[in-house]
Parts: sequence; C-alpha cells; structure tokens
Amino acid sequence: MCDSALTLAFSVLGKRWNGLILGVLGSGPASFGVLRKAVTGISDTVLSERLSELAEAGLIRRSVTDGPPVSVSYELTPSGIDLSPLLTKLASWARENMRAAV
Amino acid sequence: MCDSALTLAFSVLGKRWNGLILGVLGSGPASFGVLRKAVTGISDTVLSERLSELAEAGLIRRSVTDGPPVSVSYELTPSGIDLSPLLTKLASWARENMRAAV
Repeated sequence: MCDSALTLAFSVLGKRWNGLILGVLGSGPASFGVLRKAVTGISDTVLSERLSELAEAGLIRRSVTDGPPVSVSYELTPSGIDLSPLLTKLASWARENMRAAV
Repeated sequence: MCDSALTLAFSVLGKRWNGLILGVLGSGPASFGVLRKAVTGISDTVLSERLSELAEAGLIRRSVTDGPPVSVSYELTPSGIDLSPLLTKLASWARENMRAAV
C-alpha cells in the first residue's frame, strides 16, 4: 500500500462529513437543501465549505439547470462515482465490525 | 448505502492518522517506534492516543511477547484485517483520481 496515496485520500475523506456527503450523492444528484437534511447535524456554513472542497478535489460538481426557476444541484464526478462502491463497502464493513462502538 | 454505518466508519477512519496507521499495520505487526517512523509527522503523544482509540474500536490489538527483552507490538485484529483491502483500494483510487491535489 502506498502511504502517501492513503494520506491523500484521507486529506479529503478524513474531514468530518465528507464521506457522508459523498455517500448521499452516491444515490444521485441532490440540492443543497436535500443534502443538509440528509447529513444530520451539519450547518449551512460547513456544508458550503465541504461542497467547495469536494468540488475543488474533483469529486463532485455543481450543476445549474436553466430556469425559471434556476435549479442548482450537486452530483458526483467520474472520480466520485469510482469512489462510491468503496464507500458502500466501507459502510458494510462498519456495520459488521463496529457494532460495539455504536 | 447506510449513512449511519458510514458515519460510524468515519468516526474512526475520519480522524487524522488512523487510516494511515491501519495501512502500515496492514503490512504486518509493528512496534511503536516503527509506526512512529512510518507515519511521518505524528508525535508520540498523538500516536499513543490513536493506538488506544483503534484498540478500543476493536481494529488493532497490543501484543506483548515475553522476554527478556519484553517486546510490544501492535497488529490488526480480524476486523482490521477485513478493512485492509478496502484501504488498499482507497489508496489506488486516490492515486488515480487525486493527482491534481498533490
């Protein structure tokens, strides 16, 4: 395993909420409002920051649909889509192995 | 995907260094000193904390070999071993998808 690559992955995934945001977007594009409800406990400010960071890292993109009304949604990029099954496996692993910590 | 399971996974993996420590132990048991060298930039105090947390989460265990000299090493539990290939895949994904951020 290449440690620097893992460090790189966790520089994004290791920040609170990011794995969860990507997990939600794994089910399909979502608006800011939908994401805020799905990611329980996140504030608007932090969600905005995380979405910017994930977009900068190339994992998600902001998509604007011409209106009226103009509709803004967030969706996974191809890189984000590649990551999605790994997050699903990670969730399965957690369900099987981390019960004690719930 | 179950979001609460992903939250659970990231409650441990989302903390700085933890993914990396598990990645190093994926190659086999290691002493505190070996881990400290492998995880560049971590302090003794933080490494101690992380090892305790990972042990509490059931992902690693401390193994003492009778001496003299007594030898202490850390190794993955079966849960940690299950996680290992996922971390390897995550590292591959990062290498392929996160070059821009290096």
